[in-house]
Amino acid sequence: MNRALFSKHVELKNIRITDSFWLAETELVRKEVIPYQYEALHDRIEGAAKSFAVENFVKAGRVVRALKEGREAPVFPADKWCYDDKNAHPDAFHGWVFQDSDVYKWLESAAYSLSNFPDAQLEKKADEIISLVCDAQLENGYLDTLYVINNREEIFSNLKDFHELYCFGHLAEAAVAYYNSTGKRQLLDAACRFADLICDTFGEEKIRGYGGHEIAELALVKLYDATGEKKYLDAAEFFINERGKKPYYYDLVLGRKTVEDNYHYNQAHCEPRKQNEAVGHAVRGVYLYSGMADVAKRCGDAELYDACKKLIENIINKKMYVTGGIGSTVDGEAFSFDYDLPNDLAYAETCASIGLIFFIRRMLEIEPNADIADAAERALYNTVLSGMAQDGKSFFYVNPLEVLPEASHKDSRKRHVKPARQKWFGCACCPPNLARMISSIGEYCFTENEETLFIHQYIGCEAECANARIRVVSDYVRNGRVSIDINPKRAFTLALRIPEWCREYSFSMPCEIRNGYAYFEIGSAVTLEAEFEMTVRMIKCSNMVRDNVGKVAVARGPIVYCIEEADNGKNLQLLRISKNPDFRLDGEDILADGFREKEKTVLYSEWKEAEEEAVTLRLIPYYKWGNRGENEMSVYIRI
Amino acid sequence: MNRALFSKHVELKNIRITDSFWLAETELVRKEVIPYQYEALHDRIEGAAKSFAVENFVKAGRVVRALKEGREAPVFPADKWCYDDKNAHPDAFHGWVFQDSDVYKWLESAAYSLSNFPDAQLEKKADEIISLVCDAQLENGYLDTLYVINNREEIFSNLKDFHELYCFGHLAEAAVAYYNSTGKRQLLDAACRFADLICDTFGEEKIRGYGGHEIAELALVKLYDATGEKKYLDAAEFFINERGKKPYYYDLVLGRKTVEDNYHYNQAHCEPRKQNEAVGHAVRGVYLYSGMADVAKRCGDAELYDACKKLIENIINKKMYVTGGIGSTVDGEAFSFDYDLPNDLAYAETCASIGLIFFIRRMLEIEPNADIADAAERALYNTVLSGMAQDGKSFFYVNPLEVLPEASHKDSRKRHVKPARQKWFGCACCPPNLARMISSIGEYCFTENEETLFIHQYIGCEAECANARIRVVSDYVRNGRVSIDINPKRAFTLALRIPEWCREYSFSMPCEIRNGYAYFEIGSAVTLEAEFEMTVRMIKCSNMVRDNVGKVAVARGPIVYCIEEADNGKNLQLLRISKNPDFRLDGEDILADGFREKEKTVLYSEWKEAEEEAVTLRLIPYYKWGNRGENEMSVYIRI
Repeated sequence: MNRALFSKHVELKNIRITDSFWLAETELVRKEVIPYQYEALHDRIEGAAKSFAVENFVKAGRVVRALKEGREAPVFPADKWCYDDKNAHPDAFHGWVFQDSDVYKWLESAAYSLSNFPDAQLEKKADEIISLVCDAQLENGYLDTLYVINNREEIFSNLKDFHELYCFGHLAEAAVAYYNSTGKRQLLDAACRFADLICDTFGEEKIRGYGGHEIAELALVKLYDATGEKKYLDAAEFFINERGKKPYYYDLVLGRKTVEDNYHYNQAHCEPRKQNEAVGHAVRGVYLYSGMADVAKRCGDAELYDACKKLIENIINKKMYVTGGIGSTVDGEAFSFDYDLPNDLAYAETCASIGLIFFIRRMLEIEPNADIADAAERALYNTVLSGMAQDGKSFFYVNPLEVLPEASHKDSRKRHVKPARQKWFGCACCPPNLARMISSIGEYCFTENEETLFIHQYIGCEAECANARIRVVSDYVRNGRVSIDINPKRAFTLALRIPEWCREYSFSMPCEIRNGYAYFEIGSAVTLEAEFEMTVRMIKCSNMVRDNVGKVAVARGPIVYCIEEADNGKNLQLLRISKNPDFRLDGEDILADGFREKEKTVLYSEWKEAEEEAVTLRLIPYYKWGNRGENEMSVYIRI
Repeated sequence: MNRALFSKHVELKNIRITDSFWLAETELVRKEVIPYQYEALHDRIEGAAKSFAVENFVKAGRVVRALKEGREAPVFPADKWCYDDKNAHPDAFHGWVFQDSDVYKWLESAAYSLSNFPDAQLEKKADEIISLVCDAQLENGYLDTLYVINNREEIFSNLKDFHELYCFGHLAEAAVAYYNSTGKRQLLDAACRFADLICDTFGEEKIRGYGGHEIAELALVKLYDATGEKKYLDAAEFFINERGKKPYYYDLVLGRKTVEDNYHYNQAHCEPRKQNEAVGHAVRGVYLYSGMADVAKRCGDAELYDACKKLIENIINKKMYVTGGIGSTVDGEAFSFDYDLPNDLAYAETCASIGLIFFIRRMLEIEPNADIADAAERALYNTVLSGMAQDGKSFFYVNPLEVLPEASHKDSRKRHVKPARQKWFGCACCPPNLARMISSIGEYCFTENEETLFIHQYIGCEAECANARIRVVSDYVRNGRVSIDINPKRAFTLALRIPEWCREYSFSMPCEIRNGYAYFEIGSAVTLEAEFEMTVRMIKCSNMVRDNVGKVAVARGPIVYCIEEADNGKNLQLLRISKNPDFRLDGEDILADGFREKEKTVLYSEWKEAEEEAVTLRLIPYYKWGNRGENEMSVYIRI
């Protein structure tokens, strides 16, 4: 590892988003999503799945008060929870084992939003929620409402299947975000107290366990960065080092023999530093890998970084959809084998792409790498944006590349592929994850060190960086043009990522091109104009991906396009795009020359050249699909 | 319904198969499959899943003896069986609820085989098994070892999920076959006594139930045909008429409210005579439809026949693979929606195609119809033959049209798609079903009435028909040539099906062509030479089937071909067949001109015309795939 390449992202409080494209998204999150989710967490959305999340904190607070007052608190089964168990006692915990995390993710989104848009009312709501959370913390620092409410005796007894360390992670992320944004320490202190308990509980001479759903690793590093408390970093490293060691901790504790295969699910099949293929539950995977990168950088751990490099390369070279979706199979919400990227069966969870962006940011902080920054762009502008409806009121969990609504309704193999966004999920990980990603979008634009400021994502903003005050005026999504006003605080190097999709580019200043970045020496105030030529292009997917042989995807700049039934009629499989499709822009859409094969309902007949008629295909940005009711959609088109 | 068109198949005892192609198959069944299955039923095959089937009859016989002698018999839970419940009492029933049927299917195969090849040793074994079966029958005629062994009090208490009426059906089929073949009545009498009990138990003023897994309907008609006992036909009709009536019988008895959808699984979603789409478990479906056709014919029930016509048309026009496979989804082993025929996810159970042939024979007995006879040919020469290995020792349950072994091993969505045939299944319905189909293949060749003898399948044989003694010398599979020596007993009409795949045909005698059949007036002894031109052809699948747009299947005569990795290398998706492929025969294989796209492992790149090299594709008969170890296979090829 070359420490000279290390950099840090520019913190959110130093960035003000001004980009018209992204401002629309962040405003949607601020004005629609955050208020909507606040109501959802309080179970006040009619017709939506119940959350129980805030209610659980209220119940846990009651238990904590009782215990403090020396009263007895009831005990309910902690290992037999069920999301909507109608038979559960009304005072018992309700919802999924990870329900607390939805509250934390909401707090984190609110924190990010407040850092850009001060809002006294929102801050008051957040403070109230934080009080509820803190009231639910046991005296020893423990904080997970499932066990606080149901059974204090069974805390940390099943790290594999339950989510205490996961909920801790989201608590810590929210706490750091809220502290950074508002300066208020109440939640941070609570998170540290829980972290202290974790440090006291887990370790070489203590419990040698690790969380079934990773996130504690990266969250402990965030706490370490915020507080400087070295033991938090040590705990993160410990969790990473213990994972996958044999005999398996889970087997020892849960007293059952499990075939090795099962541990792929949560990346515990072998020690993380020996992993070189992304396997198992995709969200868990990228959360773990993020924590690994965090620890590798802070500990200068080259072996761990090497594993991270192999993992990111495996993902972006063999396991990522053209839309930046990852985790292609619904079974275990998992990575499948190399090149197994089916269009119509895709899982490609919104959260997994968000987690991929987390991982990539950390990798860029270790070493600039245009290829992986490109992958973040791919995920961001396609799968992530696709996750939220244009009105911010409904969400995709799953992001397929091909949809036939009839199949989603009638074919159990495609039941996970929803043809329309849904209001709120019982397992509501994606909407709040989207909210926190979009409201912190600024964090993904830059990394910097003493010598160099990198621009990885071209999002219009004003940023107070260490080396300079800069103002990015971006028309990147529309035409690839970016103008950067730079007011240097000292002489430094500015590095701009050259997007992989760009064949021709020009800059208003001389530069040196190295490894996908253009490097500019900045000595004095200057405005740098960059233009990345943005043509509509046809993408060929590797022919190792069986679904896509003989097909193309269409993209322009960072945006991948798709065809929808609403524009192109039923039976999208009949369409074919011309090899010279004479692409025309029409607003945000693309028109292209193509052909429609005549419908042939006879099941089997002698082959002859298909009868086709010339048609104009209308392509829309993938992230906008499914906003006009249920209809067929396809990213790949026959050529 | 036009009774003048009614016909009957020629009985097996009047047919001697001489066809070299089919004799190889029937000999395999006689010499390999029947002896192998005999051992399997006795749990004497090392490494194969246990059957428990014969053991259950022995146990049941012990219970029956105890009861006859006034001793008490133990009781075990009858509703909590589990195939390999290690905790089950050794004296309790073991195996699936339908385990008895494997014994009956073996007996049926043995019966058919004996009618063509007398074999004293086999007959002795069959007689011994029959004694075991008869010893297990309760005094009132009841015979299902699960309830006889475990709990006599709970007989007929759960017709939906348990298989008493299903096992009865297979018992009756075996009994009729054995009686027809050997003249021995012991098993037939046992079946009639069980049938009598069923007639006494079920009816308008009695129990108004029906079996969850259909077959009793067609089996009761077989008993009726064999014995002339009208009440058996009435019972079959009763079961058909009750099915799907509301309120649902199952709901009334099992005391649970079930959403209507669940009853699609066993075709109980509405009354059979109102059904017009094949839905639910495919084997159950075609067994029911077979019984419906049987009853429709014998009762002159035009409404019921109408439903049968709609069902067969729905199957062959919208729900059948080019290989004659039906039931495309693993979920419920069921028919999917129209045109949902995925290649790599296919279920297409061997038994379902066998059942389709049963159904079609019955439809042809009501009315000749070349289209549906063609579908039987398609199923027979492809999916059915594919079910058994070339050595008769291993079997496919599932018959996919595209296989990537890595996906079968690593992708849970394709776990049902086995890349190699298996020795024996715990749920062993397919191997014995194959055995009984192939050993009775003669039954599917002809139907006749007083005026006309129809030849539906061209299988070399000598047959004693009502109108003539005929000798079919067939080179049909190899070159489409058939020679028929006819010795008429009276003047009659001979009708030959003209295969749908045949563009040109010629006959040595004048004929009239009507509805896909060639009709010949036969007055005296004559040899009729028929030649069906057999070219290699490329088949286009309806473009409503999304998987197959831009692809073709290759066939010659009744045989569908496929490409395998063993001949064509890995990554079959890279292959493309030329539009003018200059097909050459090479033994049983076909060679064709084609192209191989250069491997491109880069996941996403700018599209350009693919680099291809010219290659010769080697295609093998689909039914022979998977005989050379695990390898990729594909029926459809890009064009």
